[in-house]
Amino acid sequence: MANDTLQGNRHRGIPRHGATPHSLIDAIQGTLADFLAAQIASLDAIDPELGGFARTARDLVLAGGKRLRPVFAYWGWRGVAGDAAPLEPVLPAFAALELMHTFALVHDDVMDESDTRRGRPTAHRIFASRNGHGERFGTSAAILIGDLCLVWADQLLARAQAPQGVRTCYDRMRVEAIAGQYLDVLGEAEPGTWSVERALLVARHKTASYTIQRPLQFGLALSGLAHPEIDLAYGRYGLAVGEAFQLRDDLLGVFGDPAVTGKPAGDDLRTGKPTALLMLARRLASPAQREALDPAGAVNPADGSGGSPSPDLSPADIARRAQVIAETGAPARLEAMIQERVADGVAALAGAPLHEDARAALIELAVRATHRPA
Amino acid sequence: MANDTLQGNRHRGIPRHGATPHSLIDAIQGTLADFLAAQIASLDAIDPELGGFARTARDLVLAGGKRLRPVFAYWGWRGVAGDAAPLEPVLPAFAALELMHTFALVHDDVMDESDTRRGRPTAHRIFASRNGHGERFGTSAAILIGDLCLVWADQLLARAQAPQGVRTCYDRMRVEAIAGQYLDVLGEAEPGTWSVERALLVARHKTASYTIQRPLQFGLALSGLAHPEIDLAYGRYGLAVGEAFQLRDDLLGVFGDPAVTGKPAGDDLRTGKPTALLMLARRLASPAQREALDPAGAVNPADGSGGSPSPDLSPADIARRAQVIAETGAPARLEAMIQERVADGVAALAGAPLHEDARAALIELAVRATHRPA
Repeated sequence: MANDTLQGNRHRGIPRHGATPHSLIDAIQGTLADFLAAQIASLDAIDPELGGFARTARDLVLAGGKRLRPVFAYWGWRGVAGDAAPLEPVLPAFAALELMHTFALVHDDVMDESDTRRGRPTAHRIFASRNGHGERFGTSAAILIGDLCLVWADQLLARAQAPQGVRTCYDRMRVEAIAGQYLDVLGEAEPGTWSVERALLVARHKTASYTIQRPLQFGLALSGLAHPEIDLAYGRYGLAVGEAFQLRDDLLGVFGDPAVTGKPAGDDLRTGKPTALLMLARRLASPAQREALDPAGAVNPADGSGGSPSPDLSPADIARRAQVIAETGAPARLEAMIQERVADGVAALAGAPLHEDARAALIELAVRATHRPA
Repeated sequence: MANDTLQGNRHRGIPRHGATPHSLIDAIQGTLADFLAAQIASLDAIDPELGGFARTARDLVLAGGKRLRPVFAYWGWRGVAGDAAPLEPVLPAFAALELMHTFALVHDDVMDESDTRRGRPTAHRIFASRNGHGERFGTSAAILIGDLCLVWADQLLARAQAPQGVRTCYDRMRVEAIAGQYLDVLGEAEPGTWSVERALLVARHKTASYTIQRPLQFGLALSGLAHPEIDLAYGRYGLAVGEAFQLRDDLLGVFGDPAVTGKPAGDDLRTGKPTALLMLARRLASPAQREALDPAGAVNPADGSGGSPSPDLSPADIARRAQVIAETGAPARLEAMIQERVADGVAALAGAPLHEDARAALIELAVRATHRPA
């Protein structure tokens, strides 16, 4: 969650829908809008200030990006339920994932002290500037907005026709997202102890599980059909493609075009985020390259881990570091890791008894999501 | 949530159990301990750092206070289900309220930047000092601990034998707690616009609903019996006694003995919290008294509201303000308001067809909780 991995401007390169029907995205948006309107009305009735609070939450939810989690959940469901199954009874469950995602993003932005998201002010910035209440109020209100979205997600999920296993899967997803985020903030707090392996662990639990693997399995659970073979296939596809997704994000975080990513050039270098890319570059670096990457010298020569955040890097420093990273060969290795993972994810689907349209959509999503041009 | 209204040292004056069986408190503690041990094991298996993270959450939960919400929920249930109903199937639901409460307290302490809770360091202080990771890490980790406890609460609730209405009541409680907390932080951000009426609104939605009213109705829902008359009685009792509880807290926040409350003398004066007590004192004050209460002069003469936080007050300043508040007659008025509310709460139970032991226990709790000596 701490990086903008999962949605937002950085992924403008992915066509918004791909094989996913436009009507699905519209239906999710409509479900969210109706649900939120009712919540706003009930809070407004208590106090107009609460109505205003809830409206801000609604705006953050509805401004959302590509609805990636609902889309994966949808295909996970369709892959088993087939295209004759009615969408209506399960739609609230797909939409609930988006409310849960707003919770994750809003809390994440508080932790990262981010000023903007999707080109707009973040929740805590909105509240800090409202009536000049200041930063502390902004942070408090944003924490509460996140809390509210997490509770709302539950309420919306309860409106779906959800068989037994759905909530178990949902709970697993929520705990893993929180755990992955904890590892992420821990990595930023102690980059000196980080490694390629730990960066991949974070990618697995933060991005892969939360964005792809669990949503797919959530969709499977929604079908009400027990299908261990498909569960396994979704698990393998989700982890592989999810990791690839995160590795692509690492590359974009250093080499992405700011005009397309919507983030400053080399943003991950500025924040000192111990990504797999940076960890790998340190491991592969010659002594001179390592010195250029980490002049502070806080590097562990044993495994090449180390380094500390460098918030004061100039654009020239950042460009030079990006250049050094490229010269270590780490980006090429990451590209190879991405290919391997996408291939593995696609292979996982090949043998599974999925409905054909879902298989095709998931293969397309795997490729598109991990091969964004910028 | 922003004040320590609902549990903790300030309430040492309340005997821990009253009419509530010790075995209930022990059973809740045992349920929590077993549940948390399983969660820790599963996170430990992913990564030892996550195990450590979860253990900190466990310690915060198990260090908890009087289990006031589970106790009210228990009596709400017993009042309808009677003493022959088995506790086992509903016990996880009572324990879930305590996990949810840890969520509220941990986030609340982040918002208030509190250093201690129940005489121990708060979650964000614990993480800030762990390995010297600092305040930003501490805040991030505490937000995540709160999030985790909220999700865990859901998971534990799902293990209870919970009829239809339980989750509806639980969701209402969660939304109201968040909404009440928002009004609370808003009041602290704009004390100049606050009033007695608004302070009572916050007390109603933050303390009364979350601590007493909804837990009682949650207990009723757990019985699986529809009982509109009892629902109404619990609603009226909960709001009345809950407001009285908050008003007592206001008095203790200014006049409480630090040795008993565990908080500095006049803590609410120091933080500038716009309590009903302070708002009423401003409204009743003579011009000279008002000047003494609010030398900054940011007072609205129309309704006596106003004032701004005074973080730099000396102990002598605080003692003098407490004296002036006493002289306005506001504390005596608050005492009368407390009596009225307790009487109203007790009257609400009188006609309701409750099991006798529950009625007696709730009457005792109403009196004890609102007449703490300090």
